[in-house]
Amino acid sequence: MSENKNDVNKILQDLENHIQGYSYGTSPVELYEPISYIMSLGGKRIRPLLTLLSYAMYKEDYQEILTPAMAVEVFHNFTLMHDDIMDNAPLRRGKATVHEKWNANTAILSGDVMLVRAYDMLLDINPNLLPICLKLFNQTAAEVCEGQQHDMNFEKMDTVSENAYIDMIRQKTAVLLGFALEFGAILAGAPTDDARKLYDFGVNIGIGFQLKDDLLDVYADKEKFGKQVGGDIISNKKTFLLIKAKELAKGEQRNALEHWIGGASFDKEEKVQAVTKIYDQIGIKALTEKKMQEFFDKGFAQFASLNVPHADAYNTLLKITQDLVNREK
Amino acid sequence: MSENKNDVNKILQDLENHIQGYSYGTSPVELYEPISYIMSLGGKRIRPLLTLLSYAMYKEDYQEILTPAMAVEVFHNFTLMHDDIMDNAPLRRGKATVHEKWNANTAILSGDVMLVRAYDMLLDINPNLLPICLKLFNQTAAEVCEGQQHDMNFEKMDTVSENAYIDMIRQKTAVLLGFALEFGAILAGAPTDDARKLYDFGVNIGIGFQLKDDLLDVYADKEKFGKQVGGDIISNKKTFLLIKAKELAKGEQRNALEHWIGGASFDKEEKVQAVTKIYDQIGIKALTEKKMQEFFDKGFAQFASLNVPHADAYNTLLKITQDLVNREK
Repeated sequence: MSENKNDVNKILQDLENHIQGYSYGTSPVELYEPISYIMSLGGKRIRPLLTLLSYAMYKEDYQEILTPAMAVEVFHNFTLMHDDIMDNAPLRRGKATVHEKWNANTAILSGDVMLVRAYDMLLDINPNLLPICLKLFNQTAAEVCEGQQHDMNFEKMDTVSENAYIDMIRQKTAVLLGFALEFGAILAGAPTDDARKLYDFGVNIGIGFQLKDDLLDVYADKEKFGKQVGGDIISNKKTFLLIKAKELAKGEQRNALEHWIGGASFDKEEKVQAVTKIYDQIGIKALTEKKMQEFFDKGFAQFASLNVPHADAYNTLLKITQDLVNREK
Repeated sequence: MSENKNDVNKILQDLENHIQGYSYGTSPVELYEPISYIMSLGGKRIRPLLTLLSYAMYKEDYQEILTPAMAVEVFHNFTLMHDDIMDNAPLRRGKATVHEKWNANTAILSGDVMLVRAYDMLLDINPNLLPICLKLFNQTAAEVCEGQQHDMNFEKMDTVSENAYIDMIRQKTAVLLGFALEFGAILAGAPTDDARKLYDFGVNIGIGFQLKDDLLDVYADKEKFGKQVGGDIISNKKTFLLIKAKELAKGEQRNALEHWIGGASFDKEEKVQAVTKIYDQIGIKALTEKKMQEFFDKGFAQFASLNVPHADAYNTLLKITQDLVNREK
């Protein structure tokens, strides 16, 4: 186990060194500084790690694909830079967002060039694999944009169905995990069946992770959770929990819920307590956990059915993803 | 001559049909309608036409590359959609800009997915040519972003040098014409030397076209010019004309120029007349024409040195670009 752990640390260190050493461009500085800035804010680097581990399950020299793996992280951070403008978000990982630190125009244009640089990094693969990989990447990138637009649309809608919500989070966050895994497998020359299964595994656990996010926002242990518990409730965010509660609340419960998520302003603590109480009465926590578990079970069954030559990388990937399943913050 | 003209009309018609028939995606509509909208606003389609004619100089079946040629137009319109947000522009080709008709978030996100779709269209080429074409496209796309950032930087600077200005317009507008031409040549299997010359030809005439734009904005025939003459003067836009005037104006002239481009508000007509008079005194028109002609001469000399099998397409491309050189609006 400790050997596996070291492997992950070694991979992450190699990846981090590669990211720090990469030059996106130099002039004009207003265009390239924000890219270095957002990439330096850290994060778990989970997406490129998935690519590298997926590759390592079939082929040993993961150092060969550090640049294309990094493309996935650069693309992810491009979406964050643009989403933060759209969501008017002041902070990203505890630091000022690019549009706050510079301005919206800079965040638009730096983001654009980030997307171009991600494509540049994708070119650093076996040319024979370029058409298939770019096709998958383009499809993924378009779906991520579609998911973001659906998410913005949902904000203005009274009612969002459970299916529509699941499909939105699939597009906005899960398909990129699926791509990250399939991409690594393709680059390693894995069997097509395995590559597709890894995509499905990524999408399923990705949906599960987002449901877990929704759940933790309300039910996390205050001591362990990094941010304010109940943030989604305060902002009336249409999470899986609220969508199910609106669907299932009847009579007095429904009136109470409508009261708290109406336009009036409330004491934040009071609102979080009141809405959480309604969730508890309806059993929203168990419902969400059940749905989340369905996706995790489906995903890990797909993962278990792979035919992988390098068991150590397989075990490491399993542990990494299970840690994410079990995280408490 | 009339046969050539018909050829261009036929090519443009084929291109237009292809553009109209292309589906960028359907759901969510908020994401894809703005793409159809901006692509339907027309324009001369000069960039994909350059790609198709460049191809046709070396190979006959230009219909085979309508999709990759369209990628150049989609990329160009993506930059327009995002530039219009940054420039706070209300109108594009006489119609409301996307961020005005919808909103800035939609223009950001639709633009993002447009860029992804452009890459999708680029995939529709011989896979052997994909690495080289994508590398050139990425470099071009990054330079276009760099040019836009320089342009925005210039707005806040007191003094911009002639060289810095020429380099900005090279990046912002000329390299894409160069890419459009080189791309067509590469797809047709033209000799590498010719492909590179076509890139240089495009860049040189592209810089010339922008200098012509700057010139027409002040010296166009009011009857023939589509928009208000003197718009750049009114907005103190740092065109080649103003940059040279600021460089060359001395004594009283300099004071007068500084007066008119200071922060005070003036009658527009009066300001245009006064600044034009200063330009006339310094001989800015002749200076700009000379600089412009240098780029055109260099470009057309490169074009003349090509070794082209299909003379009809060569003559058509020559006529098309010369018409742009001689345009009066």
